[in-house]
Amino acid sequence: MSARAGVDVGGSGVRAVVEFATGRRRVRLTRPTHRRATIDGASVVEAAVEAVTQAADAEHPPRLDAVCVGTTGLPGLIEDPAAIAAALRDRLGARRVMVAGDALTTHLGALGGRPGVVVAAGTGVIALGTDLGPVWNRTDGWGHLLGDEGGGAWIGRRGLAAALRHLDGRAGGSAPLAAAVATRYGEPAGLLGRVYNGDSPSFELAAFAPAVAEAAHGGDPVASGIWRDAGERLAESAVAAAAGLEPLFSWGGGLFRTGNLLEDPFRHAVLTRVPAARIVAPDGDGADGALRLLDHPPVTRHAGPFLHASGFDDA
Amino acid sequence: MSARAGVDVGGSGVRAVVEFATGRRRVRLTRPTHRRATIDGASVVEAAVEAVTQAADAEHPPRLDAVCVGTTGLPGLIEDPAAIAAALRDRLGARRVMVAGDALTTHLGALGGRPGVVVAAGTGVIALGTDLGPVWNRTDGWGHLLGDEGGGAWIGRRGLAAALRHLDGRAGGSAPLAAAVATRYGEPAGLLGRVYNGDSPSFELAAFAPAVAEAAHGGDPVASGIWRDAGERLAESAVAAAAGLEPLFSWGGGLFRTGNLLEDPFRHAVLTRVPAARIVAPDGDGADGALRLLDHPPVTRHAGPFLHASGFDDA
Repeated sequence: MSARAGVDVGGSGVRAVVEFATGRRRVRLTRPTHRRATIDGASVVEAAVEAVTQAADAEHPPRLDAVCVGTTGLPGLIEDPAAIAAALRDRLGARRVMVAGDALTTHLGALGGRPGVVVAAGTGVIALGTDLGPVWNRTDGWGHLLGDEGGGAWIGRRGLAAALRHLDGRAGGSAPLAAAVATRYGEPAGLLGRVYNGDSPSFELAAFAPAVAEAAHGGDPVASGIWRDAGERLAESAVAAAAGLEPLFSWGGGLFRTGNLLEDPFRHAVLTRVPAARIVAPDGDGADGALRLLDHPPVTRHAGPFLHASGFDDA
Repeated sequence: MSARAGVDVGGSGVRAVVEFATGRRRVRLTRPTHRRATIDGASVVEAAVEAVTQAADAEHPPRLDAVCVGTTGLPGLIEDPAAIAAALRDRLGARRVMVAGDALTTHLGALGGRPGVVVAAGTGVIALGTDLGPVWNRTDGWGHLLGDEGGGAWIGRRGLAAALRHLDGRAGGSAPLAAAVATRYGEPAGLLGRVYNGDSPSFELAAFAPAVAEAAHGGDPVASGIWRDAGERLAESAVAAAAGLEPLFSWGGGLFRTGNLLEDPFRHAVLTRVPAARIVAPDGDGADGALRLLDHPPVTRHAGPFLHASGFDDA
């Protein structure tokens, strides 16, 4: 049976679309995919194969004609995308394999091949402004210690810090967030242990972002301020990535699913900086973008470090 | 030969004072003492024994009558201070052993036993307000991901983020800090590898704080702003720890050795919040405080989770 798959491997979850002659099947799995803050190829491969297998509703990995995996860590943190491509070829039998940065697959999912800027905000953040031709502007994507400003780990970290500030009696503390920490972790020592001694600090931090959303919806001004700041930071990254492009903006990644909390300040902050901006809701997600990328191998001529392709005639 | 030792084990260095009948010898070693962001007792013991041996100018660990080690991670991150005390007793032959939080030893070093607030700012930050009797207010000390606001890792992280913002063309970037990153790490990938794949993220972050100081001294407004914010955060922690005490404030830890950059905004921010505050330069450092603690075992009746003592009559 002829089949192709698009996969999006994020910091806290995986999405896959498998396209059969008879139609598409989708799956979304939530789990920490990157341990110890490093991104290793083996875990990307495992996550992708598992998601494709589930999306195909099969017991064993299906045999595919082509597969494209978009993942965090590209460009920059993944040392050898060719090794990931080779492993995917072996495990899924696909002749045509692409390994792309999730900035690229999210862009293609959101804007469907149109030039513009897409900010991908999940656990981490990366913005890509591109015309899929000569212009490739990438901003942020520097990880939870050095950047990813406005992303899930950033929001969770700010929320947890505000909870601890409240416990200390320091300025800027939040009682509702302190209550959320107590519910989730018990004593602060439980929180410290999970964040500092756990396998994936960024996953642990991002896991608190929903509690920050809940507190904001409940009217907590500290929590609301964190989401406003996040929208502002994401807008800064998006606007910086728009250099040399028509000002068309969209987004992807799990974080924007919190709705108005993030979307409103993001829109406002982009329009403040670029009054002519057009801001559109995304057409599809990173898995859709990965599938679309399989149809557009000419992109590979320009995508540089965002893409490793093998088995494509003009790759 | 009768000897006692006081040791201060911080995130990026160790200080020791060994007191012989003939006088005192001191040593200061700089190195990352805590790996992988966790604090394990074995590394505290190794660091302390090495520093005491060097301070004694001996080839092998000296035999001591008494030793007190102040360390980060207490209270909270060190699970078993009794195990550290037992190891120190074995390795140094001391009958009387104390293992204290560095907040307490820094307090005793800086204020010499007077009630008040001392903020310990090195790689991390912890403030302690105490009268060494019933009042024990501790603020921050939550580590580089959740707090330690205004400390060395916090300053370095902000400086590195500002460098990457500059490279992205985002708002809030700093060209001098970007140049410092290029000198130190080459391409950003070199920085990412060291921070995310290294043994001690907080040490790596804090190691950039001197570059932020240099940029501030050179007139970079972004770098100056980071130090101003740091002074403000440290003041917030100090003021919160002053509840129920006379408003006497001091500080300890390596970070204040940058001089006016930090001390001026700290003083200003404390006085803005507590106009009656008295702010005094520290009498001594954490190693002095550890030595002093050996003379004041009655403190142990009150110090609770800040102190584990064994071999003292009223401990």
